[in-house]
Amino acid sequence: MSDYKITFLIQCHDSKGIISKVTTFFYEEGFNILSCQQFTDNIQEAYFMRVSLDAKDLTYSREELKSRFAKVAHSLSLKWRVHFTEDKENVVVLASKTTHCLFDILEKHGEGKLHCHIPLIIANHESIKYVADQFGIPFHYLPITGENWRERQGVILKLLVEHHVDLIVMARFMRILSSDFINHYQEKIINIHHAFLPAFQGANPYKRAYERGVKMIGATAHYATDDLDEGPIIEQDVERVSHASTPSSLAQIGSDIERKVLSKAVKYHLDHRIIVTGNRTIVFPETED
Amino acid sequence: MSDYKITFLIQCHDSKGIISKVTTFFYEEGFNILSCQQFTDNIQEAYFMRVSLDAKDLTYSREELKSRFAKVAHSLSLKWRVHFTEDKENVVVLASKTTHCLFDILEKHGEGKLHCHIPLIIANHESIKYVADQFGIPFHYLPITGENWRERQGVILKLLVEHHVDLIVMARFMRILSSDFINHYQEKIINIHHAFLPAFQGANPYKRAYERGVKMIGATAHYATDDLDEGPIIEQDVERVSHASTPSSLAQIGSDIERKVLSKAVKYHLDHRIIVTGNRTIVFPETED
Amino acid sequence: MSDYKITFLIQCHDSKGIISKVTTFFYEEGFNILSCQQFTDNIQEAYFMRVSLDAKDLTYSREELKSRFAKVAHSLSLKWRVHFTEDKENVVVLASKTTHCLFDILEKHGEGKLHCHIPLIIANHESIKYVADQFGIPFHYLPITGENWRERQGVILKLLVEHHVDLIVMARFMRILSSDFINHYQEKIINIHHAFLPAFQGANPYKRAYERGVKMIGATAHYATDDLDEGPIIEQDVERVSHASTPSSLAQIGSDIERKVLSKAVKYHLDHRIIVTGNRTIVFPETED
Amino acid sequence: MSDYKITFLIQCHDSKGIISKVTTFFYEEGFNILSCQQFTDNIQEAYFMRVSLDAKDLTYSREELKSRFAKVAHSLSLKWRVHFTEDKENVVVLASKTTHCLFDILEKHGEGKLHCHIPLIIANHESIKYVADQFGIPFHYLPITGENWRERQGVILKLLVEHHVDLIVMARFMRILSSDFINHYQEKIINIHHAFLPAFQGANPYKRAYERGVKMIGATAHYATDDLDEGPIIEQDVERVSHASTPSSLAQIGSDIERKVLSKAVKYHLDHRIIVTGNRTIVFPETED
Repeated sequence: MSDYKITFLIQCHDSKGIISKVTTFFYEEGFNILSCQQFTDNIQEAYFMRVSLDAKDLTYSREELKSRFAKVAHSLSLKWRVHFTEDKENVVVLASKTTHCLFDILEKHGEGKLHCHIPLIIANHESIKYVADQFGIPFHYLPITGENWRERQGVILKLLVEHHVDLIVMARFMRILSSDFINHYQEKIINIHHAFLPAFQGANPYKRAYERGVKMIGATAHYATDDLDEGPIIEQDVERVSHASTPSSLAQIGSDIERKVLSKAVKYHLDHRIIVTGNRTIVFPETED
Repeated sequence: MSDYKITFLIQCHDSKGIISKVTTFFYEEGFNILSCQQFTDNIQEAYFMRVSLDAKDLTYSREELKSRFAKVAHSLSLKWRVHFTEDKENVVVLASKTTHCLFDILEKHGEGKLHCHIPLIIANHESIKYVADQFGIPFHYLPITGENWRERQGVILKLLVEHHVDLIVMARFMRILSSDFINHYQEKIINIHHAFLPAFQGANPYKRAYERGVKMIGATAHYATDDLDEGPIIEQDVERVSHASTPSSLAQIGSDIERKVLSKAVKYHLDHRIIVTGNRTIVFPETED
Repeated sequence: MSDYKITFLIQCHDSKGIISKVTTFFYEEGFNILSCQQFTDNIQEAYFMRVSLDAKDLTYSREELKSRFAKVAHSLSLKWRVHFTEDKENVVVLASKTTHCLFDILEKHGEGKLHCHIPLIIANHESIKYVADQFGIPFHYLPITGENWRERQGVILKLLVEHHVDLIVMARFMRILSSDFINHYQEKIINIHHAFLPAFQGANPYKRAYERGVKMIGATAHYATDDLDEGPIIEQDVERVSHASTPSSLAQIGSDIERKVLSKAVKYHLDHRIIVTGNRTIVFPETED
Repeated sequence: MSDYKITFLIQCHDSKGIISKVTTFFYEEGFNILSCQQFTDNIQEAYFMRVSLDAKDLTYSREELKSRFAKVAHSLSLKWRVHFTEDKENVVVLASKTTHCLFDILEKHGEGKLHCHIPLIIANHESIKYVADQFGIPFHYLPITGENWRERQGVILKLLVEHHVDLIVMARFMRILSSDFINHYQEKIINIHHAFLPAFQGANPYKRAYERGVKMIGATAHYATDDLDEGPIIEQDVERVSHASTPSSLAQIGSDIERKVLSKAVKYHLDHRIIVTGNRTIVFPETED
C-alpha cells in the first residue's frame, strides 16, 4: 500500500446494482479498494458512497481515470467527485480575539494530523499575531468596523483567490459573512458555533446557557450558509456543567469543546469524509484507508 | 449512624457568618452533621445550603426542632425547609402510550432506589395498564380528548388531593397541563422533554432533530411551569447519533436517555438535593449521607 | 421494502475484487441491497462484510439461496453465515440476585426492541422469580452450591437443548461456567462484567474500583470464553464518579451502565451485526436496514 | 471581592463540631468565606475541607494568620495547609518526543488558565525544542540512556532545586523516575498515563488496547509514586473507539484525551483542589471562588 490514495465521493438516487457496478468498475481497472463505505437514505431514497483506492494501482493518468469513471457515472446518473491525496488543500483560517481554536488547528497541522497547507491566517485583532508567528505562518491583520466590513470582505476574497484557497476555517471569527461571500465558497467554509445547535443560535450563547440553567454545554461545527448558524452540522460535542458554572466558566469549559469539535470537522473535510445532502451531512466514519 | 436523616435546604442573601451560625446551631443542639453542602452564587449574591443530620441525634420533637431552627432562620433571614426521611413522599406518575420511563421509575422504586410511595398511575391510554398491573400499582385510565381535557384535569387534581400527592412525574405524558393545574403544584411536577432543551422545544423533537441533522440527541428533565418546556432544568444527558439515524431510530436511542434522565431527576427531588432559584436549579451532588 | 430481511455475514482474506464479486452476485440474483457494510483489517489482512437484503426479492427457496451463494463463497474462500429475520432466535437468560439487567432485557423484549423469543429464565435465587412472573416468562429455579455446580450445569445444558437455545445471556449471573459448557456454546454466551475491562477482572470490581480511587467506572459485555473475563468485547460504557462514591454507590451507578451495555450487546448479536475475529469483535454500526 | 484568595485544605478524623468551629474561627477573624467545601468519608471516618477566603479581609500578616489558625488546628487535631494566590507555583515540564500534552500546558498557561510560572522545560529529545522556543520558555535538553539515567536524574533534581520547583508535570515523559527522586517530590509530580488505569499499566497501552479489542480508550493523570502507574488518580477520561481503530489511530484519538486530562489535573493541583488520602484523591469540584 502506498501513502497515496484516491477517494471518490458519490451520491445518486437509490436503485439496484449501483454498488455492484461501481465496485466492478474499480476492480476491472485493477484497483485495490482500501475502503468502501455506503449509506442508503431510505427516507430520501438516496444512496451515498465513499470509495478509497490505492493510488499505486493507477496505471494511467488522472485525467484518464476521471474520464473513464465519468462514463460509468453517466450511465448510473451519479453525482461524484474525486480527490487525490497528493493534492493538499489550501486552508485559510479566519480568527478574532480568542486563540484556542487557532492553536489547535496549527498544532495538529504541525504534527501532520491535518492534511493541508495553511498559507495564511487572517484576523481582525492584531493581538493574536503572536500565534501565527509562533508557527511561522503569514498573518494578515484586517481591522474591521461595522462600516468597512463589506469592503473588507472584498479584501478577504481577493486574498483567498490569490492563495488558491480550498477551505476557509472560521476559528471563532466573530463576524457574519455576507451571502455573496458565502456563495463563492459553498461547502467550503467551516464555522464553529459555541453552543449545541440549534440551542442558542446567535450571539452570547454561554451567557444564555447560564441564564437557561442548562446542565450541559456544547459546540457545533457546521458549513456556513446564508442562514446564520443554520448550515449543515458536521460535528458536535458536549460537556457536563453545573449550577456552579458562571458565563465565564462556561466559556472556559466550552473552549476545550470548541477546539476539539472544529479540528475534527476540519479533518473530516480534508479527509473527504463528508457529503452534504440538503441541510444534513453524511460523515463517513474514520477508517484506516 | 441511623438510617434516618434530617435534611435542611436553606437559601438566603450571601453575607458573612451564615455557615458559621447555622453549623454552630446544629452543633450546639447535639447533631452530627452528615454532610454540609453549600453554593455561593456570586452573580445573584445568594447563598444556598443543604445540611444533612443524623436523625438519631434528635432528642426532642420535630416540631421543637423546627421551632428552634426558625429562630436562627429568622435572625439570618433564611428561606428554608426541612425533610425527615421517615416521611416518604407520595408520587403519582402520569403516562400516555410509551412505557420506557414508567418502567424505569417503577423498577427503581421496586428495587428501593427511589424513596417514595407510588399510590397511583394515571394514563390516557389503557394499553399501558399492564405495566401498572405488573408492579401491583393502582391504575387510573382517563380517556382524554381536546374537548374534555379541562374537565379531566379537574379529575386528576381530585385524585392527587385524595392521595396526598407530593410529587407528580410526567413520564412522557403527552398533554399540556393548564396554568391553574401547574400553579397548584409549583416545583412539584417533573416533566421529561425528549430533546436537549432549549433545542427542539415543543412537539416532535426527534423528527426535527433528524431534519436539522444534529450529531447528538438528548433529553431534559425539568420542573413544569406555565411556559411550556421553559421550566427550571434538573438534569440533561445526550447520546451520539449519526446521519444513519432516522426519526424512529432517534426515538429508540432517545428512550434510553429519557428514562435515565427522568429517574435521576426524580431521585434528586426525593433526596431533597434541589433548590430552585429563578429559572435555574441548584442540584447538590450525591453524597453518602 | 418488506419487514423481512436476509443478512449475510462474511469474512475472508483480503484480496482484490471481493466486494465487486459478492455484490454482483446479489445484483444478478435480483436482490436490492438494503445495506452493505465492510471492514478491511489491514493488520490481519482480513476482510469483513455484512450484507442485508430485502427478503421479498427472494424468488426461490432459502436452501437454493444458500446453495447458490455457497458456490461464490467457495470460489472466493469466504467464511460466511446467513440469517433470515423470520427465524427468531431463542434466548435464555441466566440471573442471580440482582434484577436490573434482567428487567432491561425483558422490557426491551416486551417493547419489541429485541428480535427474539425468551422461552426461559434460569436463576439460582428464587427471590427474583417475581420478575419472570411479571413478564409471564417461565422461571426455572436452580439452587447452586460449590458442590452441586458441576451437576447443575448439566441440568442447565439439558434445559437449553430442550428449548433449542441460540443465545445465552448472563444477566449478572454470578457463577463461572465450565469450559465444557462454554465450548458447547461458542460465541453464543454473552456475559456482562461490571467493570471497564480489562480493569478489575474477577470478583468485586466495584470494591476494587473504590480502593483504586478511579474517577470513572464502567461495564463490559463480552462473549464468554474459557478465560474468565477475557472473551471478545462487544460493548463498553462508562460513567463519571468521584471521591464521594462508596462501593455501594458505585454499584448503584454501575447498575445503569450494566443494563444499557448488556442490552446493546444482545441487540447487536440478535441483529447479526457482530463478527468475532481472534479475540476481537467487528461490530457493524446500526443502520436502517 | 479582590482577585486574591487564601485557600485552606484541611483533613482530620471525623467528629462533631469541626465545621462549626473552623467556620466560626474565620468568621470571627473577619473573613468572608468565598466557598466552603467538605467531604465526609464514612468508610475511613475522615473529614476533608477546602475553605477559600477573600484575601482582602486579611488585616494582619500571613504569618499571624497561620499562627492563629494553628491554635484551632491543634485543638481539633487538624492536618492542614494554606495557599495564597499571590504565590504562583513554579512548574517544570518533563517531556520526551510527543508534543500534544506540552502544547496544551503551554497554551493554557499562555492564556492565563494555569496559575503558575513555568521556568523550564526538560526533555530527552531535542526535536521538541521548537515548542519551548515558540512559547519563549527555557529548554534543557538532556540526552538519556539506560546507563546514564541515574546520573541524569541527579542533574534534573539540581535543576529543580535551582528553579524552586513546586510541581513537576510529566507530559508523556517516557522514563521511570527512581524512588529517591519521587520521594523528594511526594504529591508534587503529576504523570499522564495513556490508558484508563488500572487497565493497561506499563508499556504500550494503545497496542494492548488494540489487541484486547476494547471499545473505549482513556487516559489517567495521577501523582507519581514508587509503584509505577499505581499512584493516586486525579482525573480520567475516555473516548469511544471501534474495531476500525488501529494501534496508531488509537494513539491519535488518545492524544486528545491525554492533553485534556493532564491539563485538568494540573489545574486542579494549582487551584489547590486536591487532598490525597491513602491512595485516593479528594478533588473538590470547581467553584467560582
